[in-house]
Amino acid sequence: MSENKNRRIVLASRPEGEPKPEHFRLETAAIPTPKDGEVLLRNLWMSLDPYMRGRMSAAKSYAKPVEVGEPMVAGTVSEVVASNLPGYAPGDIALSYTGWMDYAISNGSDLRKLDPKQAPVQTALGVLGMPGMTAYLGMKNIGMPKEGETVVVAAASGPVGSFVGQYAKIKGCRAVGVAGGADKCKYVVEELGFDACVDHRDPDLAGKLAAACPKGIDVYFENVGGKVFDAVFPLLNQFGRVPVCGIVSHYNDTALPPGPDRTGMLLGGILRRSLTMRGFIVWDFAAQAGDFYREAPVWVREGRIKYREDVVNGLENAPEAFMGLLKGKNFGKLLVKIA
Amino acid sequence: MSENKNRRIVLASRPEGEPKPEHFRLETAAIPTPKDGEVLLRNLWMSLDPYMRGRMSAAKSYAKPVEVGEPMVAGTVSEVVASNLPGYAPGDIALSYTGWMDYAISNGSDLRKLDPKQAPVQTALGVLGMPGMTAYLGMKNIGMPKEGETVVVAAASGPVGSFVGQYAKIKGCRAVGVAGGADKCKYVVEELGFDACVDHRDPDLAGKLAAACPKGIDVYFENVGGKVFDAVFPLLNQFGRVPVCGIVSHYNDTALPPGPDRTGMLLGGILRRSLTMRGFIVWDFAAQAGDFYREAPVWVREGRIKYREDVVNGLENAPEAFMGLLKGKNFGKLLVKIA
Repeated sequence: MSENKNRRIVLASRPEGEPKPEHFRLETAAIPTPKDGEVLLRNLWMSLDPYMRGRMSAAKSYAKPVEVGEPMVAGTVSEVVASNLPGYAPGDIALSYTGWMDYAISNGSDLRKLDPKQAPVQTALGVLGMPGMTAYLGMKNIGMPKEGETVVVAAASGPVGSFVGQYAKIKGCRAVGVAGGADKCKYVVEELGFDACVDHRDPDLAGKLAAACPKGIDVYFENVGGKVFDAVFPLLNQFGRVPVCGIVSHYNDTALPPGPDRTGMLLGGILRRSLTMRGFIVWDFAAQAGDFYREAPVWVREGRIKYREDVVNGLENAPEAFMGLLKGKNFGKLLVKIA
Repeated sequence: MSENKNRRIVLASRPEGEPKPEHFRLETAAIPTPKDGEVLLRNLWMSLDPYMRGRMSAAKSYAKPVEVGEPMVAGTVSEVVASNLPGYAPGDIALSYTGWMDYAISNGSDLRKLDPKQAPVQTALGVLGMPGMTAYLGMKNIGMPKEGETVVVAAASGPVGSFVGQYAKIKGCRAVGVAGGADKCKYVVEELGFDACVDHRDPDLAGKLAAACPKGIDVYFENVGGKVFDAVFPLLNQFGRVPVCGIVSHYNDTALPPGPDRTGMLLGGILRRSLTMRGFIVWDFAAQAGDFYREAPVWVREGRIKYREDVVNGLENAPEAFMGLLKGKNFGKLLVKIA
């Protein structure tokens, strides 16, 4: 790893379906120089998240796509290495939104200083960052779990799902996870304290999920779609709530799947059972970020919210790690340790 | 019409698909005698509503199905003809839930007395009854239209749709209706004061709707599903709300339509545009009925909420009128004048 060059990974071309190595390109450039009012950041950690698949496509979404030839976006944790910005000094650590790169310039507007004494700095990308806040605000505003209810979440060993289920436990609910494989399911129940976890690879996913939810499902935190949604939907109780946070199983779709078309059936279920389905991204509830920063660190310190990290070393390994993320290969919050 | 016999229309068998005359049977029986604590009611008016199609099926829903051989259910306006119940005297008029019949017994628990001086009594089945309240409470709690937004509703000349659009106008919104045929569209715009109305029979429904909604759609009050939903969905704006009140175009479905399956696309739209879809029936918000009874009569008196009735004479004609309702043949609130 050169200290004198700024490496960055750009979007080489837009994938149709699954991203492949050729859709990414590693470039090097000179390390930029901060102007007045700017800092030079050296990235220490980078977050990999499913939403990045959306940014690789040109389709209209809540955020503008990454342009071909431009660096991939990412939340990062960085060290200030040079500063022309009052309030920032070399050695400061900050949450930043730079991208898949070694060095970046910031004017400070997108920085949040981190105190390494409070928590490991990389947790600002996971349990105490965007994924944790997504779980927290989605549950608080849309899931609204009440004591005694049943909450189901997929990708239950991941950073969002694990927070959702533990939040449900804090609120006195039955928490049922869905995860890929026996190891993840064991972790979800034994380490995270979910009441049950169903393996989505089980050929009888629907039956296993029904057995794990004897009183039906009141809240389904949707982050995968596909066959998990199909298994969940018939089990949703009257007045069930479905925060729609992601549909990672569809991100690589290139065409709609074959029929029949279940749109009408879905509307019928929403109607007959007075269901609420509501899509959101974490910034929809930005005004409540303070609630998260007040509550979540306490829960983590008390061990009520546990987390797991899956660390990949080296920026150059980010594309492969990201492609694996979309297939559920990570186990815990996927992070790239850059420096 | 015999005054000495009680005619009633029972569910003869459960339809698969479209209800046909053979699914109904007219029976006659003796007029029942009220016991202590009961009144004998003679039905004057009966409401026909799309939800009744659901009651003809055995499928689990928010209300239990009508059993084969039992009378069809309906909201009715009745005159008390004999009373053994304190507080009710012969000649009193009440909203009741008796069914497709001439006479019925009630213990008073399902009655609401009506004052014929306040409003024509049959409005308790339409603009000032369940359909109006459905529109009002669905918009108040889920649609939540804000000034300057665009509200779309189908079956716009019907009792729910016409209230939805006029409510939108009261709240300062652009109201766009969808209705079947030029006469209904003309009425919706010229009489009800919607800003535009699109004919759902137009081969370019999607294009016409887009043209009528230059700033997209913020609220879609869903009462039909099918092709109207398909035309609306791509036009829904960020943070759009969809109260799901009915899907009349699907009520006669016997199988899911051919593919592709758009479930994932629907979830993707909900996610990317932070949409809310929420099913409801009017009783979900029963606690707010008082708000409706306070506001709606004032709006009707002031002419801000107009309504239209489509009256069919004779209980014996109810099945045919109901079958027509499911095809959109009525023009305004469909009522059967029984006596």
